[in-house]
Amino acid sequence: MVDLKKFVRDVADYPKPGIIFRDITPLLADANALEAATDALAELFEGEDIDVIAAAEARGFIFAAPLALRLGVGFVPIRKPGKLPYDSHTHSYDLEYGSDELHLHVDAVEKGQRVLLVDDLLATGGTMEACCRLLEKTGAEVVGCAFLIHLVELGGERRLEPHRCRSVLNYGG
Amino acid sequence: MVDLKKFVRDVADYPKPGIIFRDITPLLADANALEAATDALAELFEGEDIDVIAAAEARGFIFAAPLALRLGVGFVPIRKPGKLPYDSHTHSYDLEYGSDELHLHVDAVEKGQRVLLVDDLLATGGTMEACCRLLEKTGAEVVGCAFLIHLVELGGERRLEPHRCRSVLNYGG
Repeated sequence: MVDLKKFVRDVADYPKPGIIFRDITPLLADANALEAATDALAELFEGEDIDVIAAAEARGFIFAAPLALRLGVGFVPIRKPGKLPYDSHTHSYDLEYGSDELHLHVDAVEKGQRVLLVDDLLATGGTMEACCRLLEKTGAEVVGCAFLIHLVELGGERRLEPHRCRSVLNYGG
Repeated sequence: MVDLKKFVRDVADYPKPGIIFRDITPLLADANALEAATDALAELFEGEDIDVIAAAEARGFIFAAPLALRLGVGFVPIRKPGKLPYDSHTHSYDLEYGSDELHLHVDAVEKGQRVLLVDDLLATGGTMEACCRLLEKTGAEVVGCAFLIHLVELGGERRLEPHRCRSVLNYGG
């Protein structure tokens, strides 16, 4: 059994003083840790019916595509403005300073499809909440949100209710 | 055998008039096409010694992470400014209008490691050339560049010489 936390590097004061950044690049660079993390993510919602995996760029793509292949389902990318060429749903959301926007092709998922959302990290949940809103516009059903890392004290899980959040590694809380 | 080109959607006049955008989102959304594309990418440099897969955000991550898992090697993300928390190599490159910059953690790969670069699409080759330059700064060896799609007429392959480019789907040329 791989101790995945050993492969997460704590970088102090990034992106600003007082913040500890949980850097997963050492985990990604280690073949065994990468595989163990992917296995663990796949187990979070094991046994549930899932038709599609979706994730927001960019780090979300790293685990979402392997999960889609492992589950034998398709992968749907959720993107920043100016990246998707076809008609898209859009959702704006507030950041600490300013706002951001995510896009999803209108034909990316079908009504009633069961979608598992994936990201590397759950902090305040703003990005994942935007992903949920986008998928709700399509009539798809969000099965849940799977994360490699959950920063428990930031309250993201409550923000994403009633959607279920599950994570491989918990920090704080 | 899956005809992958059937899953690539041509979007006219995106991102600007006269350009045909090759949209891979229908391919990603289809489980069989996604698996066939990943298989085909894995075969491009089959039999060669590869220690690491590297890719630039964001679409590069979609195929690079599954390839790393399939080959049993690590994955190294190459990122836009402000995304990597640790000491990084940087490389600036010119775009049609303005310039862009890519970053790579200084400890991402070791000297002498054999790295396969992956991206979804080779156009003029600017992004991939920047990736090669970054990896050369680490002392790693670029085994080659693997693409799902190659827009042959844009000359990207020549720009990337002497590195080898191989692609699954060719358009034009």
